[in-house]
Amino acid sequence: MSSTISGNTEKFAEYKTLKVTIEQSIAHIELCRPAELNSMTTEFWSELPDAVRTIDEYVLARVIVISAQGKHFSAGMDLSVFANMGKDFQGEPARRAEKARRMILKLQDAFNALEEVRMPVLAALQGGVIGGAVDMVSACDSRYCTEDAFFCIKETEIGMTADVGTLQRLPHLMPQGLVRELVYTGRKMGSQESKNCGLVNHVYPDQETMLSEVMKIAQTIASHSPMAIAGCKEMLNYTRDHDVANSLNYIATWQSGMLQMPDVMEAMGAAQEKRAPIFKDLLP
Amino acid sequence: MSSTISGNTEKFAEYKTLKVTIEQSIAHIELCRPAELNSMTTEFWSELPDAVRTIDEYVLARVIVISAQGKHFSAGMDLSVFANMGKDFQGEPARRAEKARRMILKLQDAFNALEEVRMPVLAALQGGVIGGAVDMVSACDSRYCTEDAFFCIKETEIGMTADVGTLQRLPHLMPQGLVRELVYTGRKMGSQESKNCGLVNHVYPDQETMLSEVMKIAQTIASHSPMAIAGCKEMLNYTRDHDVANSLNYIATWQSGMLQMPDVMEAMGAAQEKRAPIFKDLLP
Amino acid sequence: MSSTISGNTEKFAEYKTLKVTIEQSIAHIELCRPAELNSMTTEFWSELPDAVRTIDEYVLARVIVISAQGKHFSAGMDLSVFANMGKDFQGEPARRAEKARRMILKLQDAFNALEEVRMPVLAALQGGVIGGAVDMVSACDSRYCTEDAFFCIKETEIGMTADVGTLQRLPHLMPQGLVRELVYTGRKMGSQESKNCGLVNHVYPDQETMLSEVMKIAQTIASHSPMAIAGCKEMLNYTRDHDVANSLNYIATWQSGMLQMPDVMEAMGAAQEKRAPIFKDLLP
Amino acid sequence: MSSTISGNTEKFAEYKTLKVTIEQSIAHIELCRPAELNSMTTEFWSELPDAVRTIDEYVLARVIVISAQGKHFSAGMDLSVFANMGKDFQGEPARRAEKARRMILKLQDAFNALEEVRMPVLAALQGGVIGGAVDMVSACDSRYCTEDAFFCIKETEIGMTADVGTLQRLPHLMPQGLVRELVYTGRKMGSQESKNCGLVNHVYPDQETMLSEVMKIAQTIASHSPMAIAGCKEMLNYTRDHDVANSLNYIATWQSGMLQMPDVMEAMGAAQEKRAPIFKDLLP
Amino acid sequence: MSSTISGNTEKFAEYKTLKVTIEQSIAHIELCRPAELNSMTTEFWSELPDAVRTIDEYVLARVIVISAQGKHFSAGMDLSVFANMGKDFQGEPARRAEKARRMILKLQDAFNALEEVRMPVLAALQGGVIGGAVDMVSACDSRYCTEDAFFCIKETEIGMTADVGTLQRLPHLMPQGLVRELVYTGRKMGSQESKNCGLVNHVYPDQETMLSEVMKIAQTIASHSPMAIAGCKEMLNYTRDHDVANSLNYIATWQSGMLQMPDVMEAMGAAQEKRAPIFKDLLP
Amino acid sequence: MSSTISGNTEKFAEYKTLKVTIEQSIAHIELCRPAELNSMTTEFWSELPDAVRTIDEYVLARVIVISAQGKHFSAGMDLSVFANMGKDFQGEPARRAEKARRMILKLQDAFNALEEVRMPVLAALQGGVIGGAVDMVSACDSRYCTEDAFFCIKETEIGMTADVGTLQRLPHLMPQGLVRELVYTGRKMGSQESKNCGLVNHVYPDQETMLSEVMKIAQTIASHSPMAIAGCKEMLNYTRDHDVANSLNYIATWQSGMLQMPDVMEAMGAAQEKRAPIFKDLLP
Repeated sequence: MSSTISGNTEKFAEYKTLKVTIEQSIAHIELCRPAELNSMTTEFWSELPDAVRTIDEYVLARVIVISAQGKHFSAGMDLSVFANMGKDFQGEPARRAEKARRMILKLQDAFNALEEVRMPVLAALQGGVIGGAVDMVSACDSRYCTEDAFFCIKETEIGMTADVGTLQRLPHLMPQGLVRELVYTGRKMGSQESKNCGLVNHVYPDQETMLSEVMKIAQTIASHSPMAIAGCKEMLNYTRDHDVANSLNYIATWQSGMLQMPDVMEAMGAAQEKRAPIFKDLLP
Repeated sequence: MSSTISGNTEKFAEYKTLKVTIEQSIAHIELCRPAELNSMTTEFWSELPDAVRTIDEYVLARVIVISAQGKHFSAGMDLSVFANMGKDFQGEPARRAEKARRMILKLQDAFNALEEVRMPVLAALQGGVIGGAVDMVSACDSRYCTEDAFFCIKETEIGMTADVGTLQRLPHLMPQGLVRELVYTGRKMGSQESKNCGLVNHVYPDQETMLSEVMKIAQTIASHSPMAIAGCKEMLNYTRDHDVANSLNYIATWQSGMLQMPDVMEAMGAAQEKRAPIFKDLLP
Repeated sequence: MSSTISGNTEKFAEYKTLKVTIEQSIAHIELCRPAELNSMTTEFWSELPDAVRTIDEYVLARVIVISAQGKHFSAGMDLSVFANMGKDFQGEPARRAEKARRMILKLQDAFNALEEVRMPVLAALQGGVIGGAVDMVSACDSRYCTEDAFFCIKETEIGMTADVGTLQRLPHLMPQGLVRELVYTGRKMGSQESKNCGLVNHVYPDQETMLSEVMKIAQTIASHSPMAIAGCKEMLNYTRDHDVANSLNYIATWQSGMLQMPDVMEAMGAAQEKRAPIFKDLLP
Repeated sequence: MSSTISGNTEKFAEYKTLKVTIEQSIAHIELCRPAELNSMTTEFWSELPDAVRTIDEYVLARVIVISAQGKHFSAGMDLSVFANMGKDFQGEPARRAEKARRMILKLQDAFNALEEVRMPVLAALQGGVIGGAVDMVSACDSRYCTEDAFFCIKETEIGMTADVGTLQRLPHLMPQGLVRELVYTGRKMGSQESKNCGLVNHVYPDQETMLSEVMKIAQTIASHSPMAIAGCKEMLNYTRDHDVANSLNYIATWQSGMLQMPDVMEAMGAAQEKRAPIFKDLLP
Repeated sequence: MSSTISGNTEKFAEYKTLKVTIEQSIAHIELCRPAELNSMTTEFWSELPDAVRTIDEYVLARVIVISAQGKHFSAGMDLSVFANMGKDFQGEPARRAEKARRMILKLQDAFNALEEVRMPVLAALQGGVIGGAVDMVSACDSRYCTEDAFFCIKETEIGMTADVGTLQRLPHLMPQGLVRELVYTGRKMGSQESKNCGLVNHVYPDQETMLSEVMKIAQTIASHSPMAIAGCKEMLNYTRDHDVANSLNYIATWQSGMLQMPDVMEAMGAAQEKRAPIFKDLLP
Repeated sequence: MSSTISGNTEKFAEYKTLKVTIEQSIAHIELCRPAELNSMTTEFWSELPDAVRTIDEYVLARVIVISAQGKHFSAGMDLSVFANMGKDFQGEPARRAEKARRMILKLQDAFNALEEVRMPVLAALQGGVIGGAVDMVSACDSRYCTEDAFFCIKETEIGMTADVGTLQRLPHLMPQGLVRELVYTGRKMGSQESKNCGLVNHVYPDQETMLSEVMKIAQTIASHSPMAIAGCKEMLNYTRDHDVANSLNYIATWQSGMLQMPDVMEAMGAAQEKRAPIFKDLLP
């Protein structure tokens, strides 16, 4: 597949805040401003959704792994974003409020992209996962971290209500009573507590080990039928937001078009022949 | 009560895939094809809902325990079901798709029965709980397992998206980040991890111990007012699918008819007299 | 702030079932009938919502801590309430049923108050948390307990379906499979199991330690912007009852009016000056 | 197609309350107890859903027309049904209430069948459409009537709240302010007012004209692709009960399997050749 | 019944903006400040909900008729309300925004009362129905008007978005395309157009005739079982806000407690004896 | 304002299927391929959403009027679109189905744009409004037509289920029983019937008169506060898709930021001074 990514991925090289590498159907997106604690600058907010949506649109990979360079995953929102926003807001207060609303919806959209793409997104986290970074990883499919990782809903401490996804998605990922304590106090939650409460799937001793293990999980996912995987992701997203009866009807309707025999035949044939199955990519 | 089940239960003896025993208001349904790993044949898909709905309609028991004979709980869908389905699907593709949709809805209905009956359904699991078996036990009220039990969402591995309930119900039973890893990779999850994440309530050293302990839980349930228990199940199902305000209104409305004093009087009288209370069955 | 509470809080001294103390923006509500196991009498059902709504309306505190005097948190509904109700119900059965429905909605409303007020409510629990007390603490933001604490959904045992919130809120706080076992059997769940399953955030060796530690958490919350905290609580309540897309839109709309710079400026200024920030109270 | 209906339709001849005729893909169901004002007896409540579901399951027609013999469409519930129900209800009041709830759900299901079948159901009405008959025709796709027709929500007058569909479906068919007047007063609404408010599509001078004209409409429907028609009905039902965003997503998902070229090709080819298109039936 | 209203209705005489008369189970609420065009002052916003909720709580009537003295029904919000509000809003803008939100919710609650009470509310309208008056009558069950009546969504013209119910309820009462024109332009809609589009049920030549005829409708409603009527209103409100499947389940559950034979027996007995049935009031 | 539209509107001149004129805050979008019956080509599907979203993003107008040149408004989908689509669909059927789903969602998005922009969209229709054109005008705020106009849900006739909005939006605009007849039969509905059923607001004798009158409506809208209008549109869209309680809460929350005094002051000042008010545009 690496031969087809040509033109579409050239822009990845221009990114200021992300490094994107695609190998063997796994796209690895790294936050690459460790010196600035991978804080989320204005460029970040456009590069991240651009990266994942390009990967999806042109079918450049079957799974996405997000990690970060340096000691911390991310310190969250870069203060320059607030400053830039401020410049745009002038005049009558109702019109400014209406504009602020659209601006927040736009920021949210950057993380919605992680949910909307057809392939799973795995987050591999070390050090601080702070403020906007919690919003971000809450929109990933699964989270993995190192022993030294910690989560901090920083917004409360700086006088704000988190508004790009943490309050909407975290309660689906861990017990509500604990979510509320973290949100109201802004205290740090360490890796072990994060594992125990279900927020992360596994804790690894260091980043190298973590990346190596998360890549193995990614390889397993990439080896499966991307049609089956895309159906699973669509259904898991749908189920979170609908009742069981509607969700059952939805998959039955989805399957009427999407359940076809070629992939099943290939999977079974490969199993009999004791070889790895070969599945076609999704269509762009 | 065993004297009243007469005619309605005769058909249980005809079942090919299930053994149904009813004693002291506990119905025990056993998957009874251990040699074939209790795979889910065409008969199974009609016998299971028939059994639980008959038990409910004629009020043959106050709680249902489902277990399996042999080393594994169930290997999931029997391949013969696919083969049988294939025969029916001919001709124009849209009409086949429409028929496939109805067929999946019908399969789903077999497990919906577990939710819809008025009495709790407990699942006692050993060995492999694979593919369709995960869909099935996700529709039970509570799950218990042996140390050697493991869960495997096999569908992904054979090129399919699970479509009879796993993706709709499992996210309500355990943390979403872990559900997604299991779904996308198809890896096995062992008994201890299943306990830690909340999917099963208790792990027992072996099947004999498990059945003995689960039957004690069933006896406790059977000793309570079936009217109170039926109300609890209705409310827990309803709450999963509605918001809190609607759910509170629903139970207030339900109670206006269902909350009556005879059962409370009996419970209190029995407590004072230090004897077991005697509650009437629900009406058929 | 203690100087402003004057008139509004005088009525607190009249309460029969609660002791209310407000210091440094923390309102401490204690169940104060330990000799009767803090059972929930007719007075309790009006005093509790009156207390929390008064604290909210007149902005008497920024966080509420609920605890109980004596060996047990609460034995739940006092039998006198049933007796009192009985007197009111006479005549034609449909009209009585309609009245019973309104009565239950009114009881539920007492605990809805815990959710609706703008400040977090923390529950500190020891000994038995039984029947109606489980309904009550399920409506608090977070729960903390001592080692000797246990939870018991008593209603089932006395022939009733719990109808003031347990069945509606508990499934959002801990795994569903375990909720169902507790509801159907009425068995006690101890402190460690409660911590493991996510129902309580922390277990403390004794009540004194617990209260001391919970008050520290309360102090942290009270030190933050009450505007930010109120936004968080509104969003967490909203998210539980709506899908993610609607919830994201809701916070964007909320923020258009509620996100203002003064609090952020104060938080940042205080951080730079290494002092505690000073935030204004909400408006009454 | 009339040659294929053989065995499945034999039972139609046994019906006591309905006459079923199938010609040229149009099933005509007539209420056939004019002497008793086509009141809804116990047999009716099972024969009606049996008829429409059999027609659907075996694909015996592409559209259903419901009409009635005699001067009035139907006087609604036959009093014998109440009497029969009464016999079954004995003993403890909560258990009776629970049984009554299931009984009502079962009656409702008879009219749900009209919505759930894959083909449109047209109602041709004359004289009185009273009580349960309003519930029934509210579940049909479209309504037509004669000049002498009138609608009457009789339940209110006999001390009951209509409970088999009128209150749930009528507000989707005509203005709410008028619905409420009809429901609260039980007054008769004549044909012209029914046409003006949108409840009926057309008023005809007499039953003969009406049946002749409604059959023409039915013929047009039967001449179209049953696949397209089934999709329309599914979508119209779905849209009534879901928001626009979900409904748009649903049809896109549905079409992924159901939109296929053969029917379009046939329609276009027939148009070019100036002949009637020939579409295959749905699969049974 | 007029003998029982004693103490509870004394406060009605104190009202500044409403005249309340109760006769033969019909409560007549008149806006009584014709000289000021019945504009909605601060007193009005508390007196209206107080009146209808008192009538409901003490079961003082079985139906409510709202009309107005003078040439116009109401000019809507009195400007003094804005002025009063302004005084309360000082200080930091986020806290003011949060307070404004609660203030609007409180205003809305005044009209929610019209929906929530157990008896139907009929609005009899003449002359201008302007601004807040449209919000108000949209929350009534049915609307009737004189030939000279007109509706005007005035808020748009004075630079505001209507926020106490018009935009939420009017689209349920008349065609959406027309609602949008009225809302965006603020143009007047006359009585005939209002009748044609379904917003009002009937147009009368003058107020005297209107009141006389609306009172006849009210009498019919008051003559029916208030239990049946209360059930109808609850169901019609519920259906507007829920899908059909949930609404059908809700009435089945409601009826399990509320459907009882005494009222039906009385209705049938009275019919046989050719006398008016006598139904008991609801319980307070 | 016409001076500010400079660069953004240059692209409008490049459009193949639309002519866009902006004067006095009214954007007039004309379908401009009358010789081809304004059929919807591939260019149309991108130009229409581009036009309305550009107008919204850069605040180029306060209201949009859509009309068409020639005898007919539009014949709906151009067959070339199907042909183009066909080329892209190759290979394994599940992957094609998944792609088809995304393609339909993209087509739908073109009409969603009409709903999502902050200003009202008025449709002025003559002659045939056919197939995709019905989907399109259903997404407009209000519809107006000439006497010779007719609506035709053509999709059914060509063997398809309409899938870009008709089935989702039309049932909100006119009575459901009539919608179903039109959908199932594909018959034409003339202007008078369209007016009577509420689909169009007004019928005009010819297109010139219609455009002149619709422009007057547009001018009225443009003269009002665009902040108030945007709030109205947001609320009307929201209310269609949510229940009344949620919708009331939403506007209260919206108003907390959006309700500000400058526009109200200007409106009142202008009224006192008997001049037209001058409102600022929304922010881009």
